[in-house]
Amino acid sequence: MKKTNKKVNAAIIIIGNEILSGRTQDVNVASMSKWLNELGVKLEEVRIIPDIEDSIVTTINDVRKKFNYVFTTGGIGPTHDDITSRSIAKAFNLSYGYHKEAYGILEKYYDKGEFNDGRKRMAMLPDKALLIFNPSSGAPGFVVDNVYCLPGVPSILKSMLGGLNSKIKGGKKILSKTITLKTVESEIAESLERVQKKFLQVEIGSYPFFRSGKVGVSIVMRSTEPNQIKDCTKRIQSFIKKKKIKIFGTK
Amino acid sequence: MKKTNKKVNAAIIIIGNEILSGRTQDVNVASMSKWLNELGVKLEEVRIIPDIEDSIVTTINDVRKKFNYVFTTGGIGPTHDDITSRSIAKAFNLSYGYHKEAYGILEKYYDKGEFNDGRKRMAMLPDKALLIFNPSSGAPGFVVDNVYCLPGVPSILKSMLGGLNSKIKGGKKILSKTITLKTVESEIAESLERVQKKFLQVEIGSYPFFRSGKVGVSIVMRSTEPNQIKDCTKRIQSFIKKKKIKIFGTK
Repeated sequence: MKKTNKKVNAAIIIIGNEILSGRTQDVNVASMSKWLNELGVKLEEVRIIPDIEDSIVTTINDVRKKFNYVFTTGGIGPTHDDITSRSIAKAFNLSYGYHKEAYGILEKYYDKGEFNDGRKRMAMLPDKALLIFNPSSGAPGFVVDNVYCLPGVPSILKSMLGGLNSKIKGGKKILSKTITLKTVESEIAESLERVQKKFLQVEIGSYPFFRSGKVGVSIVMRSTEPNQIKDCTKRIQSFIKKKKIKIFGTK
Repeated sequence: MKKTNKKVNAAIIIIGNEILSGRTQDVNVASMSKWLNELGVKLEEVRIIPDIEDSIVTTINDVRKKFNYVFTTGGIGPTHDDITSRSIAKAFNLSYGYHKEAYGILEKYYDKGEFNDGRKRMAMLPDKALLIFNPSSGAPGFVVDNVYCLPGVPSILKSMLGGLNSKIKGGKKILSKTITLKTVESEIAESLERVQKKFLQVEIGSYPFFRSGKVGVSIVMRSTEPNQIKDCTKRIQSFIKKKKIKIFGTK
């Protein structure tokens, strides 16, 4: 895969009443985000929206202009609440109907009596959509312009990501380093702010935790520049030493 | 709490690079959503955005006009990446500085030597913000207009929600019923669509699953009208019976 030097960003749109209602815990953001990091694409926004055509159309048209890549999850199955394909067609002002290639894939996937109207519905896509191969359950995802539409079921979604690697043109890989300390945030806040001001190419995050009786803070550095992370780490280690703070671990 | 008859909706804005990077799995959407259901407030959108002032200001100003309530999580701690309070002040064009009441709470919470500059930073809020009591760790959340700012740490966030119950004016409670079937979506898609068209006050979702060797579909009905859910259930049970589909359970 050819890497570009410029920054490449993405947004995810989760289409699903079941996430908004609290019935289902989303896990797709975390897995897609890690996949995007590897490809050198920075996830910069996520929106979770309901299965309502207007919401999908408006959100797609807002987000697709702001980011290099947009990924949607959910709403491409065979039931009445699966309206992603139709809504994407509307957002791009494309006609919507049986997609010859998708129809062929599904017809081949199911036995003759099994390819019923519900399943045929999954072959209805925006005109000229490119397909995303689904090794798990036949029904393909699809791409229109910079919008990649994927299913919501986590295991199926995950199985489809690998096939997209060669299609996404990422920038430099986003590297990350974590130092976990036995301290509280307020003890290191000022020193950490000074380090952040010196290293503008490193995004430094501070995350307190309380678990297994331990109180601590994880400092996370993220950057595309390995040397910047290295120098930033040294600077942080130096104030940690001065303050006699115990390090739980680094990663 | 007085209930209104009109529909009341909300959005959540998750402020946190750690969620976008995939480092941290968000669990606040699901817990807040369940809490809002009980209050009769429908969660209609979630946005996950980075710790960047411009993103926060733009998102807040976009979302607060569209929804009755907006809840933010994250970015109200003592470190340099905690910029929610300052950004909210900017979004509302309010001055930002030490909040007398918040300062008093934190001064009392910490022992004298412990109330350092990092901790004092947590008392810097938009002018005239109302406070949200924090029973877990002292540092209060705050409210400006219809925007409620809460911490990102799930256990602390949860401990603060109860105190808000009397402040949120919800509509009718959102009821839900689930029927779990041994079937695949395409078998019930057409029948379910017909039922959905008859019951426009019920939001019917269809969710396939594959777990512990079982393949099935959960049909979820949501509505503020108990009779509508009851009648809708009857109609669904009727086509299930005709199709001789096994019911795994109802809830």
